[in-house]
Amino acid sequence: MAASEGNRREAGGEQATTPDHTAKRLAILEGAAEVFVRRGFAAGTTKEIAAEVGLSQPAIYHYVGSKHDLLREIALHVDEEMNGALARGLAVSEEPGRQLRGIIHEFTAAVVRDRRAFAVFWQELYSLPDDVRSRIAEDERTFVTAVAAIVAALQAEHRMPPGSPIVLAEAVLSMPSWMYHWYRPAGPLSASEIAELYCRLVGLDPP
Amino acid sequence: MAASEGNRREAGGEQATTPDHTAKRLAILEGAAEVFVRRGFAAGTTKEIAAEVGLSQPAIYHYVGSKHDLLREIALHVDEEMNGALARGLAVSEEPGRQLRGIIHEFTAAVVRDRRAFAVFWQELYSLPDDVRSRIAEDERTFVTAVAAIVAALQAEHRMPPGSPIVLAEAVLSMPSWMYHWYRPAGPLSASEIAELYCRLVGLDPP
Repeated sequence: MAASEGNRREAGGEQATTPDHTAKRLAILEGAAEVFVRRGFAAGTTKEIAAEVGLSQPAIYHYVGSKHDLLREIALHVDEEMNGALARGLAVSEEPGRQLRGIIHEFTAAVVRDRRAFAVFWQELYSLPDDVRSRIAEDERTFVTAVAAIVAALQAEHRMPPGSPIVLAEAVLSMPSWMYHWYRPAGPLSASEIAELYCRLVGLDPP
Repeated sequence: MAASEGNRREAGGEQATTPDHTAKRLAILEGAAEVFVRRGFAAGTTKEIAAEVGLSQPAIYHYVGSKHDLLREIALHVDEEMNGALARGLAVSEEPGRQLRGIIHEFTAAVVRDRRAFAVFWQELYSLPDDVRSRIAEDERTFVTAVAAIVAALQAEHRMPPGSPIVLAEAVLSMPSWMYHWYRPAGPLSASEIAELYCRLVGLDPP
């Protein structure tokens, strides 16, 4: 799992964040995501996670916390990855076509980077506490609304078909989102090559 | 949940399938999907499902069976809906563009019809027994391979961008698949209007 400053601030504020500490936390979150994807959050145990990472159960508690803390951290990490993908995509250009291309590329790269964390995120939304769930739902609305505004700008230039910008935004975002289900790293294409196919499929040719 | 001959044969073969019996089974499966989506399969109980449907727990056991039987039935129903969507879409025409339009329309209609069952299906794959999981994985491969063949035929006519037909097939199928996450029946568009937007987004204009 990629390092995430916000998450560390979020739940590890009182801990020393030495490089070793951070590396252990990330390895634990990755192992937890692996176990939760394979067995589900309810069935997965910190014992299995400890075995997956090669650490003791007390070490899991020391570096992150309980099973619920692990899920919360994974979810907040993914939420931040999605917010980051949107922000970086929007920053690429002022031109809506390039912005949408940027968002598709950034989002695809994020899902490929943290496939298991994204899978846990979407499979276990109902297991999250209400505050985390509302925050995620709000960030997701922000994401879709921003993409819908870009779609509307492209429609005004006849570069997207007419119709509900929200539904078209959901349709475009489906492509990176759904990769958590089918993508396997053994495949021949890089994240960037896959994102480029998505862009061309929806008529966003390279500038 | 829409009636499904195969499912009834699958697990209710010994039961009399009177209209009332069938209606109760469908109501129970719908209630079970509702509870599993809201609380997850591990946390949901037959007591909650009984309350959701307005029946007793023994009635749930009588008409379908245990919690695992309920999940299995939901999964087999969705599997069959997907197989049906593919078969009906292919049967629309010999022309690949019309076939792909047909598949998108049929698949979107299926997800809209049984949104909760599809959500449970994809969220709880890991909770299914191995035989059901392999059958689903095989049917999914068949689905994606068939769509990839259509994509390749459209590429040969320059009606789809070049690149991996499998990835493009996954991208097209993402749009109906991912609706389990965002679609709500209160929205203004019908399944067919949404499917039409998907078709136009990927350059499949009406014939």
